[in-house]
Amino acid sequence: MTYNASELSGTSVTQTARRIDFQCSPEGYRHWKLRFAGEVAELIMDVDETAGLVPGYQLKLNSYDLGVDIELADALQRLRFEHPEVKVVILKSGKDKVFCAGANIRMLAGSAHSHKVNFCKFTNETRNGMEDSSEHSGQKFLCAVKGTAAGGGYELALSCDRILLADDGNSTVSLPEIPLLAVLPGTGGLTRVTDKRKVRRDRADAFCTIEEGVKGKRAVEWRLVDQCIPNSKFDAAVAAAAKALADTSDRPADAKGIQLTPLARSFAETTVTYSAVSVEIDRTGRRATILIQGPTSPPPASAAAMHAQGADFYPLRLARELDDAILHLRSNELSVGTLIFKSQGDAAQVLAYDALLAANASDWLVREILNNWKRVLKRIDVTSRSLVSLIEPGSCFAGTLAEIIFACDRAYMFAGKMKGDNRPDARITLTELNFGRYPMSNGITRLQTRFLGEPESVTKAEATTGKPLDATDCATIGLVTEAFDEVDWADEVRIFLEERASFSADGLTGLEANLRFAGPETMETKIFGRLTAWQNWIFQRPNAVGADGALKRYGTGVKADFNPERV
Amino acid sequence: MTYNASELSGTSVTQTARRIDFQCSPEGYRHWKLRFAGEVAELIMDVDETAGLVPGYQLKLNSYDLGVDIELADALQRLRFEHPEVKVVILKSGKDKVFCAGANIRMLAGSAHSHKVNFCKFTNETRNGMEDSSEHSGQKFLCAVKGTAAGGGYELALSCDRILLADDGNSTVSLPEIPLLAVLPGTGGLTRVTDKRKVRRDRADAFCTIEEGVKGKRAVEWRLVDQCIPNSKFDAAVAAAAKALADTSDRPADAKGIQLTPLARSFAETTVTYSAVSVEIDRTGRRATILIQGPTSPPPASAAAMHAQGADFYPLRLARELDDAILHLRSNELSVGTLIFKSQGDAAQVLAYDALLAANASDWLVREILNNWKRVLKRIDVTSRSLVSLIEPGSCFAGTLAEIIFACDRAYMFAGKMKGDNRPDARITLTELNFGRYPMSNGITRLQTRFLGEPESVTKAEATTGKPLDATDCATIGLVTEAFDEVDWADEVRIFLEERASFSADGLTGLEANLRFAGPETMETKIFGRLTAWQNWIFQRPNAVGADGALKRYGTGVKADFNPERV
Repeated sequence: MTYNASELSGTSVTQTARRIDFQCSPEGYRHWKLRFAGEVAELIMDVDETAGLVPGYQLKLNSYDLGVDIELADALQRLRFEHPEVKVVILKSGKDKVFCAGANIRMLAGSAHSHKVNFCKFTNETRNGMEDSSEHSGQKFLCAVKGTAAGGGYELALSCDRILLADDGNSTVSLPEIPLLAVLPGTGGLTRVTDKRKVRRDRADAFCTIEEGVKGKRAVEWRLVDQCIPNSKFDAAVAAAAKALADTSDRPADAKGIQLTPLARSFAETTVTYSAVSVEIDRTGRRATILIQGPTSPPPASAAAMHAQGADFYPLRLARELDDAILHLRSNELSVGTLIFKSQGDAAQVLAYDALLAANASDWLVREILNNWKRVLKRIDVTSRSLVSLIEPGSCFAGTLAEIIFACDRAYMFAGKMKGDNRPDARITLTELNFGRYPMSNGITRLQTRFLGEPESVTKAEATTGKPLDATDCATIGLVTEAFDEVDWADEVRIFLEERASFSADGLTGLEANLRFAGPETMETKIFGRLTAWQNWIFQRPNAVGADGALKRYGTGVKADFNPERV
Repeated sequence: MTYNASELSGTSVTQTARRIDFQCSPEGYRHWKLRFAGEVAELIMDVDETAGLVPGYQLKLNSYDLGVDIELADALQRLRFEHPEVKVVILKSGKDKVFCAGANIRMLAGSAHSHKVNFCKFTNETRNGMEDSSEHSGQKFLCAVKGTAAGGGYELALSCDRILLADDGNSTVSLPEIPLLAVLPGTGGLTRVTDKRKVRRDRADAFCTIEEGVKGKRAVEWRLVDQCIPNSKFDAAVAAAAKALADTSDRPADAKGIQLTPLARSFAETTVTYSAVSVEIDRTGRRATILIQGPTSPPPASAAAMHAQGADFYPLRLARELDDAILHLRSNELSVGTLIFKSQGDAAQVLAYDALLAANASDWLVREILNNWKRVLKRIDVTSRSLVSLIEPGSCFAGTLAEIIFACDRAYMFAGKMKGDNRPDARITLTELNFGRYPMSNGITRLQTRFLGEPESVTKAEATTGKPLDATDCATIGLVTEAFDEVDWADEVRIFLEERASFSADGLTGLEANLRFAGPETMETKIFGRLTAWQNWIFQRPNAVGADGALKRYGTGVKADFNPERV
């Protein structure tokens, strides 16, 4: 077995009203260490058991909570942006005998349903991001497992390109959720076992019922790990595998990274203010408005000048701020059911930035910036809030920013002029970045998904590239849900927002999770659609979370009392 | 609006212990009528509101419960087998002003979680079966909507190839679940709107929030229906569309159907006995054994002789019995968590039947029999019970019957001889039917799914076609989970069954739903994986099913009281 029940006992978790902050930096890490040696970096998990995100549990045995994962996500971003020279990241444990015991059980048992779900979503996004780095940024991941990798610990390993397991009689991989906790290996575990590692389904089934896990040659034979290596040769094998992986990478050898400086942010009672994003929260109306400010200066004249701007470069700065705003709202404003996206600024400037990015697509930093936008847009896609864009006079939804419109459940556009308003009429302009650079998790673009039944509309839309489209154009092509003129605008928008707030929050979550991802399915959509949905179901079942359920009784010495009825 | 709340009120639903019977025949239909006219049949929904499956609700306004759907499934089977001449089925309502109001809300509100889930699964299977008939049996479906088609009513229409809507100011299609009931259009509705009808996602979103539905030209423009036609021309348009659909069918013009005679069945306290299937239920052990008896006589000498045998023809008889047994266990034995498949008989005879089927694949009846087996096997795939095959001496798992092994979560094979047992050693024999004729809902075969990570094993397996494989062969190729000899067999099997019964029923349901469907996703897997999982989640949320939830309060005149927290 992986962890001893008594070791994990403690007082019950207290849900606090403290704001969960998704920003951090290496100086403040409590749980991770980074070591750099040329093209190889080590990302070492060494969880401080006293530093849980909320009181009530200890992070024994390298188990993790959302706080540990926030640091991991930060480390991964820095590896991408601050370390272009890193081709391979070796993920390992800083503790003896345990690689990682997975998500902390006390934390899970004591958390509200909404926190469990948000926690799983963020950890899934982070792990998908590792695979995105491997596939699209040339930064590969090698997992060096010494000791036990249980549950979420093994799921972390599964996110890597290769898994090396010490063959020492003690090191194991396991997904013991079913036998121990009556929940699923839900951070991509089940999906990655069958669809990434392609483990035979009966072996996968057996594996998921073996509490103590699988080790050595059987782990290799079952495709659970790539190699098992005796302790004496382990470090050499890891180094060799890292070298081999590095050789498959196209990361630049001698580029200089940029520093991810702290975001400029301020929180007030109903607002969050960044440099290019401002959030206004209307708790009575159960909605928040996310206003994006267009660039206030033209793009740098060259790629070199862009590198010099670093984290201040508008597209990167905006993406980081938007990402933080979304994460903040998800975790800290649970009753805000609708997110309203607006923009204001000079669309021509937005287009100029898009043009710079498109022209320098082979620059490593541009690649990272575009990949980051792709991930931020995907984060919006899977956000369980109703999403609506309001495209008003003076807005600057063009190119990359227009992509936000297509991530929304609805988009309303103002047609014509508002009385006494001398801002430019509302326009949407598409750029080449709308036609392939930002695929959804289903592998196709938002416009392809939108126009699944009328692919000719994608062609029509593409033919308008660079041309500002007015409300009539946009409604005709189908880029927006509806266009309203001044007579109807205010009422129509108000009615939509009020109606949305009147519906069941859960009904909308299920509706949106189904409607947003038409077309092909991928491992990623399977993780968010199938695995997550079943896990969320289980996270409400008495067999798991009831007073006599496995999650609640874990560590008490009393076995769970299950209702045997199959559903 | 579709139906008036007060019309649906009544006493609360009583859950009875009465056995749900999945067998019926047209003489006993309470809810459907069939009319035949050459290549066109009419399937008329005319629900008897007093004939609900259990007491406690009235099936007003052509709303349905499981009983209505059991008759529908029966009618569809008879259309396939008894009416080879029918190329197009026109689905219509026998009532004025309402096509179908969907699943009965009182029934849903009063049902246990498990019944809701089982009900949705069966209705989904039935609707998928309509699409299977259209695609693979040449029997097309045309939905003629006059009056309101709401919720499940529109989902029924969505299962058809074409939807014609009367343009009379009254006829509408709608998915009002979200605004009215806080649940999802979960019988494929959301998935079919986006992935079959390919409705633009923002329109789909809007559609699902419009209680009163969409009618006329907008329904066509939004791709919700194929045509809208004024009342005066409606019947002529339906006839013309039926003719056009018939012209795309390859059903034989002058073939004679076979009669689906009643199954020979007897129920006792712990057994269900059919002619070729016997079920033994061990409620203490929470398992049931399904024993399949091989054919007791050689196959008929010709296709004509097979037609003469009709429903007695072994492969058809067995499939119908197996299907009924699975449905019975699903709905009436909720605490039976594990299904054990065994067989006994002469494998050579099974192979002879497979050979006859393969040799006559172009015969319409053979096509129906094989399509039926495909659907029965898919029914096994999505059964929320742990599935295990025990391949013992004297068994006859060959060809079509071997496919059951590959539908299971685990398969154990007896190696060598049992002391004092003179039955033939356990063998598995594959036939060409294992390599394409029975795709899973993911579109690929069970062996392809099983060997996703080692496609060469499919090739190896195919090379053994026709050759009996012993336990060592089967374990080496990977057709079974493990082979045990006499020393270990009894203990290993016992330990597996006891362990399985000790796990959380819900944990296993989620585990199996994720592990069984590796590889590609299709509309069908989306319906069962994504949509169903979210619906099951919602079916537990207080916003839907709590005392103040929408489903409970529907029709009381008091609005639901929602927790606004988004998850």
